[in-house]
Amino acid sequence: MNANSRCVWPLIAVLAAGAVEAEAQTQPRSGTSAGKPAAAEATVGEILAATAPSDWRALDPENTLYLELPLGRVVIELAPAFAPQHAANIRTLVRQKYFDGLAIIRSQDNFVVQWGDPENKRPLAPARDKLPPEFTAAAANRPFEALPDRDGYAPEVGFSDGFPAARDKSRGEAWLTHCYGMVGAGRANEPESGNGAELYVVTGHAPRQLDRNIALVGRVVKGMELLATLPRGTGPLGFYEKPEQYVPIATVRMAADVPLAERERLEVLRTDTASFRAVVEARRNRRDDWYLVPAGYVDVCNVPIATRPPS
Amino acid sequence: MNANSRCVWPLIAVLAAGAVEAEAQTQPRSGTSAGKPAAAEATVGEILAATAPSDWRALDPENTLYLELPLGRVVIELAPAFAPQHAANIRTLVRQKYFDGLAIIRSQDNFVVQWGDPENKRPLAPARDKLPPEFTAAAANRPFEALPDRDGYAPEVGFSDGFPAARDKSRGEAWLTHCYGMVGAGRANEPESGNGAELYVVTGHAPRQLDRNIALVGRVVKGMELLATLPRGTGPLGFYEKPEQYVPIATVRMAADVPLAERERLEVLRTDTASFRAVVEARRNRRDDWYLVPAGYVDVCNVPIATRPPS
Repeated sequence: MNANSRCVWPLIAVLAAGAVEAEAQTQPRSGTSAGKPAAAEATVGEILAATAPSDWRALDPENTLYLELPLGRVVIELAPAFAPQHAANIRTLVRQKYFDGLAIIRSQDNFVVQWGDPENKRPLAPARDKLPPEFTAAAANRPFEALPDRDGYAPEVGFSDGFPAARDKSRGEAWLTHCYGMVGAGRANEPESGNGAELYVVTGHAPRQLDRNIALVGRVVKGMELLATLPRGTGPLGFYEKPEQYVPIATVRMAADVPLAERERLEVLRTDTASFRAVVEARRNRRDDWYLVPAGYVDVCNVPIATRPPS
Repeated sequence: MNANSRCVWPLIAVLAAGAVEAEAQTQPRSGTSAGKPAAAEATVGEILAATAPSDWRALDPENTLYLELPLGRVVIELAPAFAPQHAANIRTLVRQKYFDGLAIIRSQDNFVVQWGDPENKRPLAPARDKLPPEFTAAAANRPFEALPDRDGYAPEVGFSDGFPAARDKSRGEAWLTHCYGMVGAGRANEPESGNGAELYVVTGHAPRQLDRNIALVGRVVKGMELLATLPRGTGPLGFYEKPEQYVPIATVRMAADVPLAERERLEVLRTDTASFRAVVEARRNRRDDWYLVPAGYVDVCNVPIATRPPS
């Protein structure tokens, strides 16, 4: 019985390379019908297995960060389409080696991890110390794959160029949404006080109340488990209380500055494709034999944006 | 700037003892007005600090599990009001020492941890091996503090006796919701195949699609961080691939069977109180100076149910 139940457990795709294979192996279908199932009835693993090469895109090395931790590499895709000045400042900080030798200084359960300069000594220049509050962006002319599913925090949610996002047409605004794995730039009370020198990553249930209040700058596309499993800090807000608890950051580099042989080989499923829309539908209504009641709904933060090694 | 921004970071209460104190210390209010703020404008920390003793309840030792792991104790409150036969079977399993010496065998990033018998050898009797599918319960005569906030997965969400829950009046059904920290009983494809011998805990963004498909049996009220930080399994579905990766369970005991001196001293905020409703409102619309745009909405899985040591 136990072994059995282990085999049929429902699957949530992980935001990591290899997810495609894992899903294909483990999706608990026992269907006996021959041939390829229709898209609306396929599982996520089957949909991904049937994608065309054009459904995938490579990460842009100028928009990809490698955060090197003791246990491995975290790969972050920046979102310059939503936060161009933050992305530019982060590139500058990375290239002046601002982050190298700093540390993860905070891990609050069911919320965020955060890194930065624990001693607050490192000069930011030539990077800027204040930036415009890129908390929302113009919605006009922006790609947006709207979900029909209603959302409590925004008039509309969906996906924009590979990121979970929201939109308010009446205000002409769009913004990224605080889902698991999203990366933002910490700020003080002043809206302009964020600059990308202190970054946080969502490691818990989506804190959507932060949407439109702070600049999201990207998303972890690999290595999320390295951040999510860090010991929680025991100080207020999950800050580590002792320097020996800090998690050292060896380096943060732009993928473009890393020799080709050391780069991560990763493709991301395009969110403006029929394949992605089929993934969304498969998540909205699970079709495998385990489910008795399909939800008929999907939360924007409950749709995995698949990655894979290049085919 | 960095030190500054650390001080003003928005707070998410943790589901753990000590949360009350942590919130009271760190809530980033810089208000200068004298006197106690009105409830609708108070922060969660202020609301909790102003609660009356009657706003809190002790955990029932017959409904409280202590899961003893190498790094410490996890405290789980059972929900017999929603899953009475599962709760009874889990009590039986605990008292026959079924779980002692077993292990956590699965940790899937952004989803669940799960424990059980990795070798599938331990006899279940006298506990039962099949149970009725307690996936929903009768809504009639059930306490339910409904949220006005709309939900995508259910006609109505709210709180029932300290647990996040949903309701469909037209069907006369209520059920617990898969929020972070909720505990459920794994099952195979057959709806009756769950029995409580394999339990899982939600460690990621709420997988609400599981609602009504499986029996939730309780909630972690302390020690969630011990589960959430476990290394992710690298096998399919996050199962650990090698026995040496299993996380050993020393014992699982009912609090009632533990000497008084070794019991957890914990109170839980009652969810049918004005204090809890004020907490919900404080989470719906953050009033501290850091927030520019209050959300005006709260997700049922984004409301912490506070615990504290007895006053």
